[in-house]
Amino acid sequence: MFRTKTCGELSIANVGETVTLAGWVQTVRKFGAITFVDLRDRYGITQLLFGEELNKDLEANPLGREFVLQATGTVTERSSKNKNIPTGEIEITLSSFMILNKSEVPPFKIEDDTDGGDDLRMKYRFLDLRRNPVKKNLELRYAVGRSTRNYLHENNFMDIETPFLIKSTPEGARDFVVPSRMNPGQFYALPQSPQTFKQLLMVSGYDRYYQIVKCFRDEDLRADRQPEFTQIDCEMCFVEQEDILNMFEGLVKRIFKDVKNIDYTEVVERMTWEEAMWQFGNDKPDIRFGMKLCNLKFPSHTFTTKESIADLITGEFGMFNDAETVIAIAVPGCAEYTRKQTDELAEWVKRPQIGMKGLVFIKCNADGTYKSSVDKFYTEDKLKAIADAAGAKAGDLVLILAGAEEKTRKATSDLRMELGKRLGLRKDNDFKLLWVLDFPLFEFALEDQDGGGAGRWVARHHPFTSPKPSDIDTMINNSPKVEDLEKYLEHPYANIKANAYDMVLNGNEIGGGSIRIFQKELQQKMFAALGMNEEEQQHKFGFLLGAFEYGAPPHGGLAFGFDRLCSILGGSESIRDFIAFPKNNSGRDVMIDAPSAIDAKQFDELQIKLDLK
Amino acid sequence: MFRTKTCGELSIANVGETVTLAGWVQTVRKFGAITFVDLRDRYGITQLLFGEELNKDLEANPLGREFVLQATGTVTERSSKNKNIPTGEIEITLSSFMILNKSEVPPFKIEDDTDGGDDLRMKYRFLDLRRNPVKKNLELRYAVGRSTRNYLHENNFMDIETPFLIKSTPEGARDFVVPSRMNPGQFYALPQSPQTFKQLLMVSGYDRYYQIVKCFRDEDLRADRQPEFTQIDCEMCFVEQEDILNMFEGLVKRIFKDVKNIDYTEVVERMTWEEAMWQFGNDKPDIRFGMKLCNLKFPSHTFTTKESIADLITGEFGMFNDAETVIAIAVPGCAEYTRKQTDELAEWVKRPQIGMKGLVFIKCNADGTYKSSVDKFYTEDKLKAIADAAGAKAGDLVLILAGAEEKTRKATSDLRMELGKRLGLRKDNDFKLLWVLDFPLFEFALEDQDGGGAGRWVARHHPFTSPKPSDIDTMINNSPKVEDLEKYLEHPYANIKANAYDMVLNGNEIGGGSIRIFQKELQQKMFAALGMNEEEQQHKFGFLLGAFEYGAPPHGGLAFGFDRLCSILGGSESIRDFIAFPKNNSGRDVMIDAPSAIDAKQFDELQIKLDLK
Repeated sequence: MFRTKTCGELSIANVGETVTLAGWVQTVRKFGAITFVDLRDRYGITQLLFGEELNKDLEANPLGREFVLQATGTVTERSSKNKNIPTGEIEITLSSFMILNKSEVPPFKIEDDTDGGDDLRMKYRFLDLRRNPVKKNLELRYAVGRSTRNYLHENNFMDIETPFLIKSTPEGARDFVVPSRMNPGQFYALPQSPQTFKQLLMVSGYDRYYQIVKCFRDEDLRADRQPEFTQIDCEMCFVEQEDILNMFEGLVKRIFKDVKNIDYTEVVERMTWEEAMWQFGNDKPDIRFGMKLCNLKFPSHTFTTKESIADLITGEFGMFNDAETVIAIAVPGCAEYTRKQTDELAEWVKRPQIGMKGLVFIKCNADGTYKSSVDKFYTEDKLKAIADAAGAKAGDLVLILAGAEEKTRKATSDLRMELGKRLGLRKDNDFKLLWVLDFPLFEFALEDQDGGGAGRWVARHHPFTSPKPSDIDTMINNSPKVEDLEKYLEHPYANIKANAYDMVLNGNEIGGGSIRIFQKELQQKMFAALGMNEEEQQHKFGFLLGAFEYGAPPHGGLAFGFDRLCSILGGSESIRDFIAFPKNNSGRDVMIDAPSAIDAKQFDELQIKLDLK
Repeated sequence: MFRTKTCGELSIANVGETVTLAGWVQTVRKFGAITFVDLRDRYGITQLLFGEELNKDLEANPLGREFVLQATGTVTERSSKNKNIPTGEIEITLSSFMILNKSEVPPFKIEDDTDGGDDLRMKYRFLDLRRNPVKKNLELRYAVGRSTRNYLHENNFMDIETPFLIKSTPEGARDFVVPSRMNPGQFYALPQSPQTFKQLLMVSGYDRYYQIVKCFRDEDLRADRQPEFTQIDCEMCFVEQEDILNMFEGLVKRIFKDVKNIDYTEVVERMTWEEAMWQFGNDKPDIRFGMKLCNLKFPSHTFTTKESIADLITGEFGMFNDAETVIAIAVPGCAEYTRKQTDELAEWVKRPQIGMKGLVFIKCNADGTYKSSVDKFYTEDKLKAIADAAGAKAGDLVLILAGAEEKTRKATSDLRMELGKRLGLRKDNDFKLLWVLDFPLFEFALEDQDGGGAGRWVARHHPFTSPKPSDIDTMINNSPKVEDLEKYLEHPYANIKANAYDMVLNGNEIGGGSIRIFQKELQQKMFAALGMNEEEQQHKFGFLLGAFEYGAPPHGGLAFGFDRLCSILGGSESIRDFIAFPKNNSGRDVMIDAPSAIDAKQFDELQIKLDLK
């Protein structure tokens, strides 16, 4: 070893010991004939003291930032102590040192607040990784992984590796494919998830499976998506939904405890997908704060169990009258917003990302009066009634959006989240878990991207998700064909609910899963509903249908997005900060410069060629 | 849950309890009006008793092998106990049951000794995985992984994920490549190992890294190779070879303890590569038994430190006189082999896989006489001298091979291993570890497969392995150019030794690694020695050379072949048995039928087309 101790472990208890450290030069400070150097390694920083004698050697061999140094000396009590670091009470009075490697001046500062821009730090990722905030992120990631493995091990889960070179069965997202040299003209695909393999392991009786595993999706990268990402992938036999929910809220609570030292003792809330959409306009609501949606008006085919309160807004206001949907939220304590502030909010909802035409507000003044942007259309009594319906108290500001159902609901959700952030209601260290249940089994794709037709049912989760037992008959006894595209919501399939569940943390979906179909006939019915004929079913999933003939047990599972989970626990919005070597928005690794051209010999061996447009 | 207990946990202590089990029907045995069923799950087998009442239901709903059953009843003491299984003292007297799923008759028996052939079991891998021996293998694999993670965690290693979509830099083996849709005409490569990334992590100061990670090599598959395989990949900072050897023999000892309950207290033996070749003819010797090679004759350019004993075989025997190399081994206790037996051994070494011209034997009879197949060429005194040199005692059989150096050495090694096996000297549960050290840094490739020249130096381990410090000057001060191809062994590069080490277990290389180059100039010299010009160096490894400019620390590491390690610990020669979903020798997954054709749309999006010959 080049060292006897690390830079993070020496304290006043070690005074008098002779030690050797090795690490990187963080700072060099000269004071006349002596020099102080902060030496850094993964474990900490220790101050080195070069006395007069060694200082002469230093002049002959000057140290620069990030030089790699080996230093031997005696642990000494410092005269001026640094209480901010664990080693701050001591320094090493050196007897010798050796420069193990030199360093160019780094292109940005290796400090918590760096002067390097994103692009520069990505190109020199090996230097960015030296910075303390990035290191803390990767340490947190490791801790989350370790906590996960321990919990699952204690609960009888087995880590079983599934293959990476599998078969291309494009359903939802695009596959990355890999040409096979040994089977010319044929391709492997990289897995989008180990879904079918983990189901086969259940058929094989492995009972409880998990894997922390890389998955791949060749999608156009929106912000904060990566072509390769990591899942905590789990599956269990002989379980019902309730068992899965209990097992995996237990996992997240354990991670909270191990990684953040948080005792999450509250009951994890549960909400149906319909309630989430109704109350929050969103299937992954952030329940750390209220501001629930007040559905003043909504189309009759949605939320069929809810009663209309549209009479509250009857009147002459065209925007409300023309709108399919009108939704209000009560923003606490903001009645005194200025004109400038409400104008800014109106501009905010008109941005292209939100796309609303305008914003109506009602100020619930402290004196009990109401003032709104629609005073000429509604009496103060009416305004009060609307504000009451929205749950507004004196001092609150009611904001109302109106327009087409889907857009308006999403916009209100976005506005709610934005205000939650501005008002400091979404605190980094406040964690609230939520299960969202009873998702729709199908979505109707009006524009079929394959150009094969005008519309078809697609699986909202994936084709292996089972319908609610009470909805199985509906699925079996009805043809998936939609006669009138305009009225697809009236088709029986639109109301079939899935045995599917998402785990939501602070407004982010961190995991999701379902109870699976385990009967061959139902699985075939499902494939058929998605427009797959028998030949296609056999070609793509023959192995799974085959496996279901030999004693498939009831089973279910879920997968957590590992990168996302880590970033939320780390209080960051970006998953990239929690990946050692991430790719940019074009799917490039700018450090190693990949992807790149390959040799003629490689094309030749693979028997493929380019066909550039 | 479909069950309250598993099929492996009930004992006499549970008698009287009402339980529900779920699992697979292993056997059905009818005795008049009652029926016994063995129900199986991952945890064990429990006997179910269907009384007269339920037997009638059974007749209406007959059970078959591998049916999935849920059964409720009372734990009862058995009259005839089965001492072979943990649950053998009890049975469940059923009150109700439900068939959860039916099963076709499986194409082979789900038993320890199955009647299914390899191909059938691969196609129905999900059924083969139900068999106990296969399940035990995967359980062992999980235990090895878990033990590894625990040990490395306790020693401050961090699991850090490295990317799977990287850059193609074909050096040794062929890369699998992945066309990039977002960067048309460019390709990612799947990693052959995370080598350069783990080195970057050391440059980044992560100090101790590990990963249990999939790696990919597109090679023609010899027996027991897989296109995707798993490594335990490790790297450490500020270490010398000795530190690595200690750390990782500690890991293997820990695995022995955790997984096999073996206390491996012996000192792990060490041997130079040269000694391994000299004594065993092999760089991964099985040291569980002796039968060391007696080098009667060898070419002067090999083993330059060894003294010749060729005078022992001087005489008229042409085969020895013409041979470059003559090697003997003493086979213990086999002096009484019959003519038939020695003939069979002679045939064995003449097989094409071994390729020798013949086999000479000397029987060291119990009465002190010697009898050989070359009696007419050598006196009994001469025979005795040869036998003594080979370490033979009375009762032993000396076998001698002669021919070209490389072939003869390998053949003798193969013969030694074969006899070790036949004589029962290679016992499954006898584990002997060995470090092989000081490998040559280079090999000379006489036929350059790229057709670019008549010969060139290739890295024996990989281009990042450092030479022994004492050999660095030799490397820096000599041109790699070999003027006379016949005499490449006389080139100074042929004698440069590497700071590289292999861990050998029972004659199998289970891991290997090296101390790495961490100086930019030496790395460039290494690349140049391998025939890479500066442009190529920059294109392929510019990021690494760049990283070495910013304070790279001394570092080194190794990787274990996880599949192989598991198979040896499991007492099997085949890694396939220890992989949940392996591929066959053509790189095919016959269960899912991959690789396969892809859609025109996929070609179109990737901007590639087939170019079949």
